[in-house]
Amino acid sequence: MAESLTSASEKAGLPPGSLVHVGEVPELATRITVVDYSVAAFEEKIIESVEDILAYRDTDSMTWVNIEGLIDVDLIEAIGRHFNIHPLVLEDILNTHQRPKFEEHDSYLYLVMKSLSSKDEVLSVNYEQVSILVLHNFVFTFKEKQDDIFEHVKHQLKNSKGRFRSQGSDYLAYVILDSIVDMYFPLQDALDEVIESVEEDLLANPSAPTLALIQRIKRELISIRRSVSPIRDLLNGVLRCESPLIKDGTKLYLRDVHDHALRVTEAIDSHRDIVTGLLDIYISSISNKMNEVMKVLTVFASIFIPLTFIVGIYGMNFEYMPELKWRWAYPALWVGFIVIPVVLLVYFRRKKWL
Amino acid sequence: MAESLTSASEKAGLPPGSLVHVGEVPELATRITVVDYSVAAFEEKIIESVEDILAYRDTDSMTWVNIEGLIDVDLIEAIGRHFNIHPLVLEDILNTHQRPKFEEHDSYLYLVMKSLSSKDEVLSVNYEQVSILVLHNFVFTFKEKQDDIFEHVKHQLKNSKGRFRSQGSDYLAYVILDSIVDMYFPLQDALDEVIESVEEDLLANPSAPTLALIQRIKRELISIRRSVSPIRDLLNGVLRCESPLIKDGTKLYLRDVHDHALRVTEAIDSHRDIVTGLLDIYISSISNKMNEVMKVLTVFASIFIPLTFIVGIYGMNFEYMPELKWRWAYPALWVGFIVIPVVLLVYFRRKKWL
Amino acid sequence: MAESLTSASEKAGLPPGSLVHVGEVPELATRITVVDYSVAAFEEKIIESVEDILAYRDTDSMTWVNIEGLIDVDLIEAIGRHFNIHPLVLEDILNTHQRPKFEEHDSYLYLVMKSLSSKDEVLSVNYEQVSILVLHNFVFTFKEKQDDIFEHVKHQLKNSKGRFRSQGSDYLAYVILDSIVDMYFPLQDALDEVIESVEEDLLANPSAPTLALIQRIKRELISIRRSVSPIRDLLNGVLRCESPLIKDGTKLYLRDVHDHALRVTEAIDSHRDIVTGLLDIYISSISNKMNEVMKVLTVFASIFIPLTFIVGIYGMNFEYMPELKWRWAYPALWVGFIVIPVVLLVYFRRKKWL
Amino acid sequence: MAESLTSASEKAGLPPGSLVHVGEVPELATRITVVDYSVAAFEEKIIESVEDILAYRDTDSMTWVNIEGLIDVDLIEAIGRHFNIHPLVLEDILNTHQRPKFEEHDSYLYLVMKSLSSKDEVLSVNYEQVSILVLHNFVFTFKEKQDDIFEHVKHQLKNSKGRFRSQGSDYLAYVILDSIVDMYFPLQDALDEVIESVEEDLLANPSAPTLALIQRIKRELISIRRSVSPIRDLLNGVLRCESPLIKDGTKLYLRDVHDHALRVTEAIDSHRDIVTGLLDIYISSISNKMNEVMKVLTVFASIFIPLTFIVGIYGMNFEYMPELKWRWAYPALWVGFIVIPVVLLVYFRRKKWL
Amino acid sequence: MAESLTSASEKAGLPPGSLVHVGEVPELATRITVVDYSVAAFEEKIIESVEDILAYRDTDSMTWVNIEGLIDVDLIEAIGRHFNIHPLVLEDILNTHQRPKFEEHDSYLYLVMKSLSSKDEVLSVNYEQVSILVLHNFVFTFKEKQDDIFEHVKHQLKNSKGRFRSQGSDYLAYVILDSIVDMYFPLQDALDEVIESVEEDLLANPSAPTLALIQRIKRELISIRRSVSPIRDLLNGVLRCESPLIKDGTKLYLRDVHDHALRVTEAIDSHRDIVTGLLDIYISSISNKMNEVMKVLTVFASIFIPLTFIVGIYGMNFEYMPELKWRWAYPALWVGFIVIPVVLLVYFRRKKWL
Repeated sequence: MAESLTSASEKAGLPPGSLVHVGEVPELATRITVVDYSVAAFEEKIIESVEDILAYRDTDSMTWVNIEGLIDVDLIEAIGRHFNIHPLVLEDILNTHQRPKFEEHDSYLYLVMKSLSSKDEVLSVNYEQVSILVLHNFVFTFKEKQDDIFEHVKHQLKNSKGRFRSQGSDYLAYVILDSIVDMYFPLQDALDEVIESVEEDLLANPSAPTLALIQRIKRELISIRRSVSPIRDLLNGVLRCESPLIKDGTKLYLRDVHDHALRVTEAIDSHRDIVTGLLDIYISSISNKMNEVMKVLTVFASIFIPLTFIVGIYGMNFEYMPELKWRWAYPALWVGFIVIPVVLLVYFRRKKWL
Repeated sequence: MAESLTSASEKAGLPPGSLVHVGEVPELATRITVVDYSVAAFEEKIIESVEDILAYRDTDSMTWVNIEGLIDVDLIEAIGRHFNIHPLVLEDILNTHQRPKFEEHDSYLYLVMKSLSSKDEVLSVNYEQVSILVLHNFVFTFKEKQDDIFEHVKHQLKNSKGRFRSQGSDYLAYVILDSIVDMYFPLQDALDEVIESVEEDLLANPSAPTLALIQRIKRELISIRRSVSPIRDLLNGVLRCESPLIKDGTKLYLRDVHDHALRVTEAIDSHRDIVTGLLDIYISSISNKMNEVMKVLTVFASIFIPLTFIVGIYGMNFEYMPELKWRWAYPALWVGFIVIPVVLLVYFRRKKWL
Repeated sequence: MAESLTSASEKAGLPPGSLVHVGEVPELATRITVVDYSVAAFEEKIIESVEDILAYRDTDSMTWVNIEGLIDVDLIEAIGRHFNIHPLVLEDILNTHQRPKFEEHDSYLYLVMKSLSSKDEVLSVNYEQVSILVLHNFVFTFKEKQDDIFEHVKHQLKNSKGRFRSQGSDYLAYVILDSIVDMYFPLQDALDEVIESVEEDLLANPSAPTLALIQRIKRELISIRRSVSPIRDLLNGVLRCESPLIKDGTKLYLRDVHDHALRVTEAIDSHRDIVTGLLDIYISSISNKMNEVMKVLTVFASIFIPLTFIVGIYGMNFEYMPELKWRWAYPALWVGFIVIPVVLLVYFRRKKWL
Repeated sequence: MAESLTSASEKAGLPPGSLVHVGEVPELATRITVVDYSVAAFEEKIIESVEDILAYRDTDSMTWVNIEGLIDVDLIEAIGRHFNIHPLVLEDILNTHQRPKFEEHDSYLYLVMKSLSSKDEVLSVNYEQVSILVLHNFVFTFKEKQDDIFEHVKHQLKNSKGRFRSQGSDYLAYVILDSIVDMYFPLQDALDEVIESVEEDLLANPSAPTLALIQRIKRELISIRRSVSPIRDLLNGVLRCESPLIKDGTKLYLRDVHDHALRVTEAIDSHRDIVTGLLDIYISSISNKMNEVMKVLTVFASIFIPLTFIVGIYGMNFEYMPELKWRWAYPALWVGFIVIPVVLLVYFRRKKWL
Repeated sequence: MAESLTSASEKAGLPPGSLVHVGEVPELATRITVVDYSVAAFEEKIIESVEDILAYRDTDSMTWVNIEGLIDVDLIEAIGRHFNIHPLVLEDILNTHQRPKFEEHDSYLYLVMKSLSSKDEVLSVNYEQVSILVLHNFVFTFKEKQDDIFEHVKHQLKNSKGRFRSQGSDYLAYVILDSIVDMYFPLQDALDEVIESVEEDLLANPSAPTLALIQRIKRELISIRRSVSPIRDLLNGVLRCESPLIKDGTKLYLRDVHDHALRVTEAIDSHRDIVTGLLDIYISSISNKMNEVMKVLTVFASIFIPLTFIVGIYGMNFEYMPELKWRWAYPALWVGFIVIPVVLLVYFRRKKWL
């Protein structure tokens, strides 16, 4: 389902900085997962309160706090207070209609983007807003619901102790970003398939449901594009930013994600190009079919209408119609009934109507 | 109703700086509301003349003067004289066909934009030009008519004494800007709904009124876009401006409004994309319907025309037609009347025409 | 009538700097009007020769020389010689197929643009090239024909002695520019009206003349756009230019003209957007009508073709047709003639064909 | 005939710098014309070998060598050797599928562009590649074939001894450039005419040949655009270049050519805009015609089908048909035959189908 | 076959820097060819292992290692280790869904692009990713399969000992780049031909297979464009890069390749312009045909339907039909049967329906 285009209207009129959760995901319990690691150690646990987070604040190890579910406004507010996050950032985290963007603040970086995944059915794309706060040795991620999109990241952290665990918060942020961007590829492949099957349908047998499907794909593409294309700017922003939080070595990796984002955006544009043409093909194909039908009608009508006229003539009741008495008139007419259609059919075939 | 595209022609030919009210809003009385506040105090009252405003000029408290109705040219002129406003700015305030823009002057900032609201009926958008003059400790707003679009702002001022009331004129201007931009979101949601319902209509039952409606939406979108999209530039101007009237702390908030404006513009562009495609769907859908109708006609005609020809044959009055005397000729024909249509129908179904 | 797209071909092949008048306006006598003014004095008179102009060259008062008609090549050449104007500029003044542009020379500025006015009939736009030479205390304007487009400016000069008359040549140039740009607004309003009436026609009753009219509007818009849209660049050039001939105070006014030019260009773009869609509406509307007609044909044919077949059956002359002898066969058939159409009509209405 | 889009494939695979002539112009003899001039003298003669050129190399007079025909690869190679031209430049001169471009080398400038001229028949545009080498006091021009496109330039050189002959090689290059750009204008005028006549055809009587013609114009425009639009960049390059070979005084003239190139490009874009719309008009016009035809068919069929049914009824042979015996039945039917069509016609006219 | 749009999904979820081959080319053995040359010597041989490459690393001669087949991940990894290549670059070499790009590293340059070649059948384009690593005196090329696209380059190296063999690795890279870009030209020519033949088909005899073919061309063009157009940026990057690995003399040659890439991209854009218009022509052409068919039907029906009605009248069995007894009624009717069609035909021809 294409995401609502705007819908921030629910909050219109509130004073700026008001912390209210705005979103469409049904209210769920909030789950806080803490992953704390260093080259030597790795710990993952689910915690209950902000106080538990504070315990990790002043350690040397890297800490990743993943918050799933955005209804607990007090929690977000407490994190903001303890980690010195600007109220507008907290507001953006809670309002899930953000445009993907990157903001550099004094002691932290704020990134917000959409993770897209397609469910069982092909055209039901799942949009989820992911906010990332990058602090020194600390990364917060905020998600709308409890799912497993970060399982891969955790798995990597747990298993590859070498390079990954020795890196700082910027590298963790990169891996998270990379895993979100990589989720766009299977989605594109799915779209590819749907569009190709629609294309075949169109040429073979254009129908009203195909029309509705094209429109649905188009809407979905517009919606996907709005979620994906600002990511290039976001990454450009990160690459240009001179915050000490991002090391030069990590930028090489971020450039790689940027290349991926570029490829995804180009793929979406190609899809749009193709889908835009589908309606024209639909109309062409329908016109084609109608032309076929018209030809049949014309051939039928053109052959039988003159014949019917002829038989009508000899159905008239005039007293003085000499032909009616002729011995061979009736058989002669039958010859005409056979010759006329043959002549017309040959003529029509010459004109390429048959 | 889409706003007239230009219509500044009423004034063409007058010398520059001539103060004349140009607009479509019927002449109303002018209402001047003064809101004077500091952290400690809050006062709101309706006043009658410029002299009453001057009383607030040299106090330390923040003063917001909201002028509703632009027919009292003398009033505007007097404000210009007392607060040292350039005649061209006064002219722009009075001429309600301005393009949203931002101008930085020595002792004040001038912003002009459109507030958009949709009335009861969905596609009747209400355009109102709002001019904002930001001076030191003083904000003027000029509106075309008396309505309640600033009620929220006043309400916030009255109730949240803390942060809001301790800020300067730039923050008040930000809150006003924010409240105007936030009004675009419900409008977008309304458009969303209309477009979706038109889309369904199109696929199910395309008709001439749908066509007219699509054209109306298109026009309205063009008109809305012209009012909304320059706001990004306006806000970029404000963000880049180095006037001491705008504090750095406020810029963070203005950037937030800028993000909102960006989202609205993107939403409008998406709407335009979708609406542009609707006409193609309309044509496709109509072609579809016509194809259906054509098939029915063709089937009916193709089946009965040959049969009618056959019955015509035996309605002829030739003397020598041996079949007419045969005992089983008539029942045999009836068999043909049943077999021929069945054969044709099977054939047509094979060809996917039925 | 849309202006010819190029048509400078008449001059192709001549050496550069050749002074030849190139234009479509029929040859007229040249009229030279001099307006000489200072805060204290105002004088307007028609003169005959270049020598009369020279009399004003070395006075302190501001002088505006308006030359209407471009066939007197010697006159232009003499002005060039006396006022030290580059031959290429003189060539551009005489060739009335210039693209609007601004050129900064050492001792003068050169501006060329199109004044557009619509005559009685709505779509007959009148294009006239206006060249402006801005020197110290001296302004030349060159026009193709004698008309009253500068009457307003002279009227203002004559009446408002205060500010206007104390300003230099840059301010006069601004007022002239402003009056030309202001002439675009009523043109836009006229276009607005034509397009709206075409739109209504289209939906109600699409016909071949409407088609021709749409194409004419499109061509006119392309032509207007080519004359108007370079004016933004022209004004940008003037605003950026650092010639002492343009005072800073005047730039504020020029920025105002720039805003107007921006509004006009946006209006043209909106018009183009709307007109581009009109052809699609035309096709949609025609398809709609055809669909209606097709339905009627189908209903008529589908109802009467089977009935005609039935009456054909009982018109056959077989000897052994027992029904022909039955007492109630004929009335029973009449019942069928009534029931069959009713059943079909109900069926068609269910299918939404009626 | 639209120029082949690429066709450099003939040379693909050769080592870079290989001097091979690549082009479509049939092999012709090469003609070398030398024009040597100073303020005092003017000499034009046809020479045979490179050695003859060398005689002019070290004189003070300006020399223009015009080489027509590119099959004599040795000649080009010898020029390259004697005048110190880079092999890649020589390669570009010989390969006539170059994109117009400007290259600044140490001791010379290289320009390559297309001269376009239309032959007798309107849409048969003639493309010829012209390369210009500008050295100190020496200009080479290389053309594909022998024609008279430079006659004007020679004529001017011969006759106007004053300014022209006293200028350097940059001014000669400017005059050549100017003469090539000026050749685009008559071409545009021709296109203008063709498009206008197609437009009229379309509205009056759309047919298959018109369709083919539109497609041909479209292709030609794409081809022309590819030859013409890079000339703006070429001239920008020349204007920005700081080589001592180009004097400041000449740049003023080159800016004039740049303005012309801009106008041509804008004209092509306008043409494209118009031509793009022509197909829509074609479809609209065809739909219109078909609608007319359909109406006639529907009216004919709708009027006569019911009447035929009625006469069929009374052609039945039932024994008990009381009407057949009535005295006034037949005349009464005739009244029906007249009344029914009139009623239907009035109805149809009301529905605007006639 | 158009290349899959994205398809990097196979690798989604793996940790960054994981060396896995991602591609569609069936697994083949890897072939390593070493070409070692200096002005004096030239040696080409096929080797088996990385160790054999290392033998060439520290010699003064230029070495080109061409690796065909990307399944041997260990090999790539070993090269990376020995030549100090960043893991992300190795990953990009192995993943054959890269966007063409250029990366400058400290001791080497990395280029990746697509070579395109068309097989026997015209629209079956063959995409192959080619990665180039440029080190000091060492060039690596990585290809997906074993083919002969570099035969030309080797041939040139072997034969022209002079300039080519005395140049460094940058010149070799240039020749390889040039040979890849030159392969685009024959492809464009092939496309040119296909499109032209489709165009002719369209106008003469539009059919469903033509429709499918247009869509296939469109998809192929989108795919080709995605492979080709980033090459301009790639070359811009190379030209701007200040690495000592690229000598100034070579940049002149690279600028030449850049010009070629520009021409190819422009050709693709022109093709796209043309193909986009083809569907409109298809619809126009189909409408045309349908119009023809409709006219025939209408003429047939309009002529015979009234006649059939007339003969129906005199087939009625009323007792009192005086005409039936008239001597000349029947011949008179025959006159009508001839006159009425003639009159109608003349009328139709006047209306341009025949």
